[in-house]
Amino acid sequence: MPEVIQISTNNQTYNINIGNLYGLNALSNSYSKILIVTNPHICALHINKILSCLDSKNIFICTIKDGEQYKNLSSIEYILENAFIHKLDRKSLIIAFGGGVISDMSGFAASIYQRGIDFISIPTTLLSQVDASVGGKTGVNNSFGKNLIGTFYQPKAVYIDTDFLDTLPKREFSAGISEIIKIAVCFDRDFFDWLENVNLVDSKKDLQYAICRSVALKADIVSKDEKENSIRAGLNYGHTFGHIIELLGNYSLYLHGESVGMGMCKANNLAVLLGMLECKDSIRISNLLKKYHIPTEYKISDLDDFYHRLFLDKKSQNSNLRFVIPNGIGDMKIITNPPKELLFEAMSR
Amino acid sequence: MPEVIQISTNNQTYNINIGNLYGLNALSNSYSKILIVTNPHICALHINKILSCLDSKNIFICTIKDGEQYKNLSSIEYILENAFIHKLDRKSLIIAFGGGVISDMSGFAASIYQRGIDFISIPTTLLSQVDASVGGKTGVNNSFGKNLIGTFYQPKAVYIDTDFLDTLPKREFSAGISEIIKIAVCFDRDFFDWLENVNLVDSKKDLQYAICRSVALKADIVSKDEKENSIRAGLNYGHTFGHIIELLGNYSLYLHGESVGMGMCKANNLAVLLGMLECKDSIRISNLLKKYHIPTEYKISDLDDFYHRLFLDKKSQNSNLRFVIPNGIGDMKIITNPPKELLFEAMSR
Repeated sequence: MPEVIQISTNNQTYNINIGNLYGLNALSNSYSKILIVTNPHICALHINKILSCLDSKNIFICTIKDGEQYKNLSSIEYILENAFIHKLDRKSLIIAFGGGVISDMSGFAASIYQRGIDFISIPTTLLSQVDASVGGKTGVNNSFGKNLIGTFYQPKAVYIDTDFLDTLPKREFSAGISEIIKIAVCFDRDFFDWLENVNLVDSKKDLQYAICRSVALKADIVSKDEKENSIRAGLNYGHTFGHIIELLGNYSLYLHGESVGMGMCKANNLAVLLGMLECKDSIRISNLLKKYHIPTEYKISDLDDFYHRLFLDKKSQNSNLRFVIPNGIGDMKIITNPPKELLFEAMSR
Repeated sequence: MPEVIQISTNNQTYNINIGNLYGLNALSNSYSKILIVTNPHICALHINKILSCLDSKNIFICTIKDGEQYKNLSSIEYILENAFIHKLDRKSLIIAFGGGVISDMSGFAASIYQRGIDFISIPTTLLSQVDASVGGKTGVNNSFGKNLIGTFYQPKAVYIDTDFLDTLPKREFSAGISEIIKIAVCFDRDFFDWLENVNLVDSKKDLQYAICRSVALKADIVSKDEKENSIRAGLNYGHTFGHIIELLGNYSLYLHGESVGMGMCKANNLAVLLGMLECKDSIRISNLLKKYHIPTEYKISDLDDFYHRLFLDKKSQNSNLRFVIPNGIGDMKIITNPPKELLFEAMSR
């Protein structure tokens, strides 16, 4: 039996099942039709595992190209077109089967198809298992930035099976660890200390614990603040800078988790300059990232351009700049409009 | 002071203010920026009235082409692009200023811009004043049908000012009355009787009462069933047939209200054949439509094609066909899978 973590938002309560796919078939059987959205790579490797545990006779598969550069409205239209062609109705289900790009887009498509049908997420990358599949943020990128178009839409259930990680490329595995470190730095000092003393590549038991702990921390935050009016913004640590790094790399140079890793280091610079994080703690965070070969340094070639892009971030309000920075390890703070010189200094380090 | 009707859904309570724009400025002042979405015609005629009552210094105007044929994802992208160019943030507001096409699209754009920002609706056509602006259904059409992509997203407030109707073309005015008749037939026999004895073209006082009564009936239904799981489906009387009539006319041959008028008559045929509506009551409904020159007859040229299109309707479930038909005047019923011969007979009349 999988470990179960419950998320309760204003509208809905659902389970994140960690360990295997137990329960997926029973839940799926209540739907008229099922559209599985996946990418060609995951489909080739793992679709049989999903199909073999589903009894439904009305299953359709839609594959979309993998990668952040395809996370756009055209792909959403493609998913919707598939749903229309197979005549999905309001009692039908979409299953997201893949990484964060797949789960964000499938959730978005489900939220706007006939004004919203149910979806279930089966994340196959470490990043999406600890982050993207949990919390109900859906969306796509556009030329103005990342995830700027989307909805808040919770899945009916999430199934996390660590067996899918066996085929995950090393680099993507590391990018997922970056999000685990992010959550630990912001919310749980003990978890961070523990992470310093284990190696998630070597021990599947430790990995499973790290996933459970990350998901539990995130579930608690999302339950308290689904729409990111307060504490949930803490999860964006590293993302304000990271999103721009990703955009400037055209969503293909760096993985999301890598960009977030570099973004965290920029946020740490700011925290150190503001006296909220000790230099030695900033180094501890960098070292933990480096242990998994996550890049920690990024040279901003045009500081002014980078600065102006910060204002387009979803967290900026009334033309105010907002950053999530660590307040020591295990706590975080949202700061508004830091002195421009300090910000430039933090960006240029 | 305007008459105020309150709508309470699970997530939100808001006011529909009928009479004038009192209160709009105070509410708008709490937002960082305002994007008014309108069409060139309404902008030319009435934008000064809106601007003159708003104090905000951060107002931007975005005009989109009018008509159902422009109610598509491209127009949504255009609205979003305007929002990004003017750097709207999560504390910004979108004001929908126009007919149903404008309010449905503005609401949809607001619901997916940065995962949702607030919007206010100021409907300028009779149809949108009694129907589209009330209830939080947003969306666009595509090649598969009408309003098949969208969200449930309630406005922060609706302001209905009947002065805007003075410039409304006669044909559009009549199309709006069609929705008033629809609501009366389904939910309020006394209101229907009253409608038979007045002329809404001649009396502004009667018109204002008809708007208030329609909005109050709809508000009550939406409060009980926001997401159309039960009673709200009654509002789709005439729409199952009507949507296809609209689609086959490429969204330009008939106005929405006209299509719904013809759709109601097809639904009435079915109700008569099923013994749920007396022939004389069916004629009373037709006569009330005809009083306002709303078309009541539509010849379906390809019955089989029309029949197959019915299955794509959002109300069809598990490949079951569902229709809203009058159960006498003042009541309605949702029926599933009527005998195919009766359905063809009703369609061919």
